[in-house]
Amino acid sequence: MIERVGRRKSGGRSAKREERLSLSEEITPFIERKIPYFEYFSEESLCEIESAADTVLEEIGIEFRDDPEALDIFSQAGAHVSGERVRFDRGMCRSIIQESAPSEFVQHARNPSRSTTIGGARTVLAPAYGSPFVRDLEKGRRYATIEDFRNFVKLIYMSPGLHHSGGTVCEPVDLPVNKRHLDMVYSHIKYSDKPFMGSVTHPDRAQDTVDMAALVFGEKFVEENTVCTSLINVNSPMTFDATMLGAAKVYARNNQASIISPFILAGAMSPVTVAGTLVQVLAEVLAGIAFIQLVKPGAPVIFGTFAAAVSMQSGAPTFGTPEPSMVTYGAGALARRLGLPYRSGGGLCGSKIADAQAAYESANTLQTSALAGVNFMLHTAGWLEGGLTIGYEKFIMDADQANMLGVLLSGADMTANGLALEALREVGPGSHFLGTSHTLSNFETAFYRSIVADNNSFEQWEAEGSLGTSDRANSIYKKMLKEYEPPPLDESIDEALNEFISKKKDAFPDMDY
Amino acid sequence: MIERVGRRKSGGRSAKREERLSLSEEITPFIERKIPYFEYFSEESLCEIESAADTVLEEIGIEFRDDPEALDIFSQAGAHVSGERVRFDRGMCRSIIQESAPSEFVQHARNPSRSTTIGGARTVLAPAYGSPFVRDLEKGRRYATIEDFRNFVKLIYMSPGLHHSGGTVCEPVDLPVNKRHLDMVYSHIKYSDKPFMGSVTHPDRAQDTVDMAALVFGEKFVEENTVCTSLINVNSPMTFDATMLGAAKVYARNNQASIISPFILAGAMSPVTVAGTLVQVLAEVLAGIAFIQLVKPGAPVIFGTFAAAVSMQSGAPTFGTPEPSMVTYGAGALARRLGLPYRSGGGLCGSKIADAQAAYESANTLQTSALAGVNFMLHTAGWLEGGLTIGYEKFIMDADQANMLGVLLSGADMTANGLALEALREVGPGSHFLGTSHTLSNFETAFYRSIVADNNSFEQWEAEGSLGTSDRANSIYKKMLKEYEPPPLDESIDEALNEFISKKKDAFPDMDY
Repeated sequence: MIERVGRRKSGGRSAKREERLSLSEEITPFIERKIPYFEYFSEESLCEIESAADTVLEEIGIEFRDDPEALDIFSQAGAHVSGERVRFDRGMCRSIIQESAPSEFVQHARNPSRSTTIGGARTVLAPAYGSPFVRDLEKGRRYATIEDFRNFVKLIYMSPGLHHSGGTVCEPVDLPVNKRHLDMVYSHIKYSDKPFMGSVTHPDRAQDTVDMAALVFGEKFVEENTVCTSLINVNSPMTFDATMLGAAKVYARNNQASIISPFILAGAMSPVTVAGTLVQVLAEVLAGIAFIQLVKPGAPVIFGTFAAAVSMQSGAPTFGTPEPSMVTYGAGALARRLGLPYRSGGGLCGSKIADAQAAYESANTLQTSALAGVNFMLHTAGWLEGGLTIGYEKFIMDADQANMLGVLLSGADMTANGLALEALREVGPGSHFLGTSHTLSNFETAFYRSIVADNNSFEQWEAEGSLGTSDRANSIYKKMLKEYEPPPLDESIDEALNEFISKKKDAFPDMDY
Repeated sequence: MIERVGRRKSGGRSAKREERLSLSEEITPFIERKIPYFEYFSEESLCEIESAADTVLEEIGIEFRDDPEALDIFSQAGAHVSGERVRFDRGMCRSIIQESAPSEFVQHARNPSRSTTIGGARTVLAPAYGSPFVRDLEKGRRYATIEDFRNFVKLIYMSPGLHHSGGTVCEPVDLPVNKRHLDMVYSHIKYSDKPFMGSVTHPDRAQDTVDMAALVFGEKFVEENTVCTSLINVNSPMTFDATMLGAAKVYARNNQASIISPFILAGAMSPVTVAGTLVQVLAEVLAGIAFIQLVKPGAPVIFGTFAAAVSMQSGAPTFGTPEPSMVTYGAGALARRLGLPYRSGGGLCGSKIADAQAAYESANTLQTSALAGVNFMLHTAGWLEGGLTIGYEKFIMDADQANMLGVLLSGADMTANGLALEALREVGPGSHFLGTSHTLSNFETAFYRSIVADNNSFEQWEAEGSLGTSDRANSIYKKMLKEYEPPPLDESIDEALNEFISKKKDAFPDMDY
């Protein structure tokens, strides 16, 4: 749908329906990468980083806090446990991982044509995650609500460039902390049919996610297949906490996917250098994914990285600058060498509003992540203000960029039609190609058409009110929400989900944590 | 200077002076590339493009219009001339080029420490070129004047990320067309000491550029060295016109550098496919650079490409989309295979204002050009509205990005300090790196600090007036112009230049062409 907003000239209900149908056909469940990776680091440099990460694991070790079971598991596997600190012989984590971790996996969606594959030469784009605030042009910045959450799930559903519905697209702050995961998971299921992420704020909430998925997919199916991918952040540096470990164990034991993701504001949570940050990221991921594989050999996992640089003046995180890009390129190469799917950030930025700063930073991060070979790109669309805010207009702009990444990663047409010698012969020197048969037969798919850019003449742009990108994006998201129609959901499933949610909500008092 | 705006806490005249001196030390005349190129196309694909370009040169040929001398030169070299159409045996242009065209050359600046080298593993960043309009936040869009021209030369001079003063930074529309080149060249010399580009709108004006350079560098020096690089646009498809050929001949015979640059709005001036566009670009560049080498073997040349995609709906040029990026990657690889320096665009965009659209498009183009291996990046800073306008605020934003490209292309520190094992040992799990000795000894140079981004908290940003990127850039450019001090210029040279200009201006009536 999003690709067509602004293109359609006439309307009517049947035209709309037709458009929607043709949309669902054109959506692919992932981008098939047909271009090389950009290898920023030499093989020698990557070996040095790997060796230093082994030194970290051997000498310094990783802490697994408040989780005696985790320590037992490591101890039994032959790691050296001292207090909550776990040290590993050189190469130990790598061989545990390479023995059982899958290099790619299918995450099923309730609409089978949206089931996606994560890993290998594929790129899956998912929206922003975790913002307590939302922003739009009229109402400015405010706490997010479940209504905002639903709105974003709808917008994601309608965006062909996004293959995944994400997880905590925003925090529905109007709902109690211990219950909002139920409404979030329900919204992903009800208002979309794309794959989604599960709750990680408590092991019970992770289990609720799995149980709700079982109501949709069937219990046996969920036992045997992956239907959610969830974000397990490392408490960097070199620490896993009980909450994240608890959720990770639930997902692993249920055969569901975990992203083990160091959350790095470099200079604060990691060394103030790119290579040092990569050493730490690799050590943390090796330990975390080895843990998952010890809990449940073969459970799907993703090598995660989230990297920003801290301003040494103000302590604020900064985005879209060269050093986080280098980390993103390096971590991608390290993940490939491990044979694991790779997750990194998308449209990251520090700007409070969807202005030029936001766009420079987001574009720099999106381009880098795509060329680095990210398989699962979280935060592709909507991010503002270091993730504190998700913006409606920003979402539309990033979704446009997401579409473009799909084109960029698909490579150029190198057939005779692509080489276009016949067109060159037909036109010859000094003429133009606009009316040629080659142009006419290719123009529909020839060049990406932005949904939000204005490329009209200055005079026309001025006559139309001198609108900025945010103004145009504002109209687009409103139009999309107005035109939204939910994907069909079996009534009995819907009832079962609502019954499950009611029972859970009634069983506990509301809580703020 | 630009890198320091916003950083400085205290002032005073001597502090300013000191800052300026330390600035000139930190400026490098080019970026030394220490990372790989991104090879978007396979070698097989590049060979196919090369073969198809040879077919274009052999079967279709290139037109050289209104320049009998050019036809004679080609005829004598063994090309097949028929009317104004010149056809070449397969491989002929390539072997002419590879026999004499230098793979890199020094372009001297009047300040020897600013003399730059174009080609090889170097990137030279130059500002926008050719806009008839300027824009700033207060006065909006208006015709450019010589005052604007001087302002931009000053801003470029003060921007450490820009290595080159450019050429027609904007068109001083308040001056007669046949004389404004004198004021432009003079401004580059007077208000800056970075290398610059010459006039190409008439052979006589090209000669004026060379003659003025001789007054600065000395006649003998200019005979033997390259002191200007100029932009020879191809009248695509497959046509060179007399104006450009005339200017190119003047520069070649004077040993000055020419960029042979197909000006492509793909779909209009080239086929509507990426590969077809690359075939045409290569054919045009091969013919144009072979011509230069026939005129003067060994004259410095650059493989140019300017690629935008035409909207098939409106006919408008579009920027920052995937297809022009593919052309930029492909042309870079083709230039390297020819052994020639490569020029492509920088911060290209279609937006009328310096908003999110402008920034997404510019960032996409800047990142692509940098990774593609551009040696001479024209339009790095200031572009708006498809080049019709140069923006003051946009210039500042792009100059910030230019600084970042310098960092990105320089690679990561892979020494023991970079790997940071000592810091990791010192901090260990669960602590932070902010106060460590490693952080303290690295933080000054650790992470790029944007001159224009705001990464403060939302509350602080709001308290400071909720400024957008354009607001901040506006303050920065004004502050720079206020603090500008010209580089010293020998008084006798200044007098000689002014005398030359007066004589030229008096000799002809003002003309509009």
